Amino acid sequence: MWPSTRFTDLVGTDLPLIQAPMIGPKPALARQASAVGALGSLGCASMTPDQVRAEAAALREVTDRPFNLNFFAHVPDPEDPARAADWKARLAPYYAELGLDPAAPIAVTNRAPFDAVMCAVVEEVRPRVVSFHFGLPPAPLLARVKAAGAVVLASATTVEEALWLEANGADAVIAQGAEAGGHRGIFLGDDPARQIGTFALVPQIADAVNVPVIAAGAIADGRGIAAAFALGADAVQIGTAFLLTPEAGLSAPYRAALASAPSDATALTNVFTGRPARGILNRLMREQGPLSPTVPPFPTAAPPLGPLKAAAEAQGSGDFTALWSGQAGRLAREMPVADLVARLVAETQATISRFRTP
Amino acid sequence: MWPSTRFTDLVGTDLPLIQAPMIGPKPALARQASAVGALGSLGCASMTPDQVRAEAAALREVTDRPFNLNFFAHVPDPEDPARAADWKARLAPYYAELGLDPAAPIAVTNRAPFDAVMCAVVEEVRPRVVSFHFGLPPAPLLARVKAAGAVVLASATTVEEALWLEANGADAVIAQGAEAGGHRGIFLGDDPARQIGTFALVPQIADAVNVPVIAAGAIADGRGIAAAFALGADAVQIGTAFLLTPEAGLSAPYRAALASAPSDATALTNVFTGRPARGILNRLMREQGPLSPTVPPFPTAAPPLGPLKAAAEAQGSGDFTALWSGQAGRLAREMPVADLVARLVAETQATISRFRTP
Repeated sequence: MWPSTRFTDLVGTDLPLIQAPMIGPKPALARQASAVGALGSLGCASMTPDQVRAEAAALREVTDRPFNLNFFAHVPDPEDPARAADWKARLAPYYAELGLDPAAPIAVTNRAPFDAVMCAVVEEVRPRVVSFHFGLPPAPLLARVKAAGAVVLASATTVEEALWLEANGADAVIAQGAEAGGHRGIFLGDDPARQIGTFALVPQIADAVNVPVIAAGAIADGRGIAAAFALGADAVQIGTAFLLTPEAGLSAPYRAALASAPSDATALTNVFTGRPARGILNRLMREQGPLSPTVPPFPTAAPPLGPLKAAAEAQGSGDFTALWSGQAGRLAREMPVADLVARLVAETQATISRFRTP
Repeated sequence: MWPSTRFTDLVGTDLPLIQAPMIGPKPALARQASAVGALGSLGCASMTPDQVRAEAAALREVTDRPFNLNFFAHVPDPEDPARAADWKARLAPYYAELGLDPAAPIAVTNRAPFDAVMCAVVEEVRPRVVSFHFGLPPAPLLARVKAAGAVVLASATTVEEALWLEANGADAVIAQGAEAGGHRGIFLGDDPARQIGTFALVPQIADAVNVPVIAAGAIADGRGIAAAFALGADAVQIGTAFLLTPEAGLSAPYRAALASAPSDATALTNVFTGRPARGILNRLMREQGPLSPTVPPFPTAAPPLGPLKAAAEAQGSGDFTALWSGQAGRLAREMPVADLVARLVAETQATISRFRTP
């Protein structure tokens, strides 16, 4: 039924469907997505090497089908102590409001770029697919990933980024439309105002590159899957639509925000990490952003938010949680992953049949 | 071949394809679009009543097929003399650079909302279709338009706006994705950061309303037309893709900007009129915006730019021209309207055939 098998031929999945790597959901989501024939993805950017090993092993206890390890490939900005101090000062009233001690030590979350240590983990784990966000790692590391047998995917937000990724070794390109939830994969530009919608981006990238193209951004049901193929995609990457599955195990405030969001609930914001990402507008975004020119560089904006998030969520509030969501969050459905994937396939088939002349 | 005939049944065109109303192109574009079976649209917001009469008559000399008269339906903001003076001061260096006298009288362009005078013109001309941007006119005027036999279309940028339009008398809703060129149709909100991409907007509006849905934004070839139908649209509205036709008669700087734009060339800006609209980033947008919180209210930002635009274009520069473009401007093709429409239909057919299983 699929108009293109270039992606499934490349990665060996039954379905041309990637469950998008995300840091929020539980790894059970990736396990189940791979088990039912999609490409499950583990968001490894916030994991330690041991966690990556453990999650890959846990996935393989559930299924021997292909899966994807996702890493960040950003070039770290130098730390900026002045901005960091300003950020702490801006957050101080929230600390006071929630009864938190601003001088208490803060856990530093790992959002380090892919490095030699993680590369050794990839060589050990040998996943079928490795995907990168914010560009590609340095050439020697990328060569090792490919030598370990992994198909390499990477995200492009412009035609120019897609051409760069193809020229630098990506085996397929993810066309990440502006509707997509979470971090924009931007790595050649830096202007969130110029981000391109899925509908415009996919055909322009499909025209420009020879490698398979994976459409991402606001794909949440079979209509979207069929539309992505019509635009020239060889596969789709779906994130937000999986967030209400029980396997994703989202926090109650996050689930509530997704379930009740109006159609224009989201915006691009940099206040959670320092880089632009799409999420449901909440208190932190409204009061400190959504785009703040003085937020500390990625990812150093994030750690001081950790205590606020934990304290607020304990009170049932998502005021300080990064409620990452694409623009089709309202199309997300509460059902197990297996049922959702079956539904997506059936809906795509139904959409395609509408195009058949008698 | 079309999976839905709800739009063509409603308006009586051969094709479920609207040539989007635009103020820049010449009216020959609308004449030819209607003549070849699409719905040609005259952007009447900048015309006098006599011009509307004359252009409708000129169109009817070419074809007796349906056409669309488009009007703005905004509630005018009060003038703001302080902002107007500030705006003149911000533009003064450009006046000096181009050798213009800032004290010379300036022609006021007409971007008035639809009123009783224009309503009388509609009653006289009796077009098959009238479309509105920025909401709908007051109920008594809308009732007169419908009594004159016109099908009423209006643009929605959110699900909430689509529901409002349906409840207030629109016969079909244009789902205007964020990729679309020109003015955002926003009328219930005012936040350009929350604008929704075509891919996310069309299915959500199709789910919400019972009237036919017209997809708009980045639809430029048959892949896009097929994708829009897959997402649930009953028709498409195409603007930017017509801009390189000879009938559109664009200025040389505008054509050159379109033909050479990178994929992320556009942004939303309010500096040309006071309301957010999508265009190719140029000098005025970069230096004064692209979104300026202190620009005078719509449409009073526009008149002082007239002399700058004229003087710059005379030197071959589009520095002060509103280079309205959607995000798929690179897919626009230089060919006559009749050839382009035939090509769009053939491409849609070809895309649809890819979905046919043997």
